[in-house]
Amino acid sequence: MPQNYCIVVQYEGTHYWGWQIQKGQPTIQQKLEEAIALVIQQKVNVVGSGRTDTGVHALGQVAHFLAETKIPPERLITGINFYLPKDIVVQELKRVPLDFHARYQAKRKEYAYHIWNHLQPSPLHRHFSTWIRFPLCVEKMQLAANYLVGTHDFSAFASRKDPNKSGVRTVFRADWRREGPKLIFEIEGSGFLYNMVRTIIGTLLEVGAEKKSPEMFAEVLRSKSRTTAGMKAPPEGLCLVQVLY
Amino acid sequence: MPQNYCIVVQYEGTHYWGWQIQKGQPTIQQKLEEAIALVIQQKVNVVGSGRTDTGVHALGQVAHFLAETKIPPERLITGINFYLPKDIVVQELKRVPLDFHARYQAKRKEYAYHIWNHLQPSPLHRHFSTWIRFPLCVEKMQLAANYLVGTHDFSAFASRKDPNKSGVRTVFRADWRREGPKLIFEIEGSGFLYNMVRTIIGTLLEVGAEKKSPEMFAEVLRSKSRTTAGMKAPPEGLCLVQVLY
Repeated sequence: MPQNYCIVVQYEGTHYWGWQIQKGQPTIQQKLEEAIALVIQQKVNVVGSGRTDTGVHALGQVAHFLAETKIPPERLITGINFYLPKDIVVQELKRVPLDFHARYQAKRKEYAYHIWNHLQPSPLHRHFSTWIRFPLCVEKMQLAANYLVGTHDFSAFASRKDPNKSGVRTVFRADWRREGPKLIFEIEGSGFLYNMVRTIIGTLLEVGAEKKSPEMFAEVLRSKSRTTAGMKAPPEGLCLVQVLY
Repeated sequence: MPQNYCIVVQYEGTHYWGWQIQKGQPTIQQKLEEAIALVIQQKVNVVGSGRTDTGVHALGQVAHFLAETKIPPERLITGINFYLPKDIVVQELKRVPLDFHARYQAKRKEYAYHIWNHLQPSPLHRHFSTWIRFPLCVEKMQLAANYLVGTHDFSAFASRKDPNKSGVRTVFRADWRREGPKLIFEIEGSGFLYNMVRTIIGTLLEVGAEKKSPEMFAEVLRSKSRTTAGMKAPPEGLCLVQVLY
């Protein structure tokens, strides 16, 4: 009888072509499946809570896989981490009921976006932050972000490649804060459309640079049309913080 | 007439043999002197506020150098950063009076020590944190750290190689905090003896692991003898945060 295992995975996305398996390119899902197969001598299918793009990091990505093994969880996690590269580490591993599904049952997701906002780049923050030289007005970005909170059709911020029928999602919070030259944006929602988080941030950065007003940001949201939003923000500042069930 | 320049430098110490120039090994001071020489076509001597050890990082190391150049500061900093490797970046550069001395005039220094305290290592924190698997009691480490605050003879925590005649220094604050699996220690003082910060932290970790009580930590401090303190904590978690004048 196979058992269902839930894992929490942390990774630096810099050197990977995102989560999802792609022929010929290294991905997080692929590295996990290879490491697990080496430990339990079985081919497994690792199902993530969702994809992350090339270069995006995760502090707490959640996934599940079915496997038949007598190895106890505390030894399984050590074995898997032994075979993983050092930029991907399973933080937690536990047996869960067979009907647990990492994607379908995700209730909330939290992302963080880190910006190093200074004339000179940062050696200490270069791995996980986006460097933006020009001044950003956090107060205006917060006024704009406030419009996101609630249940809306977020189609204006979705990639045209998004496969979802409905663009309606709920954003529970969307908060900017400044810590010296660092800017941190945290957004928590019921789920996000394809590229939605990065397009929201790209558009908020236009507000921060005073190219758009907070009211114009609200107009973009209401338009439901992808043509009015800004560019996708670069991936290196983005991190999937946690997934709640 | 030469002018005096003060710089604030940020660096990831991982790939360097510390601050101080050493024959045959890459150091931060050497990389700075080489980059400045390439920009202004003069040999300079970069004087830091103090040395940092192999593998120790800095968010705000301060240094000065004398140079004769017509290049304005805002172009000088860009030029120097152009020639520096990406793990060393000058954050600020300004002209200062000729009598400014980065080491002699430093009034306060602040260090931070970052620990990833979890059974599994962290890909996202691996660059700037020390990984400690065993549980640490932050409350006990804080009780012990409280004994550091004030003016004391810190000889118990100094390396035998320390060249200072007096071990008396003032510690203004020494604070632990936990943020999930991360532990952060911040210490601010009038100055620190050679290896003092890392030996204090190594000894506090023994308290956190309940091998020493907070009272035994106080005994170590009072003993003024290096034989009673713990090991030096590993360098990768240590960062020179700022130097005040």
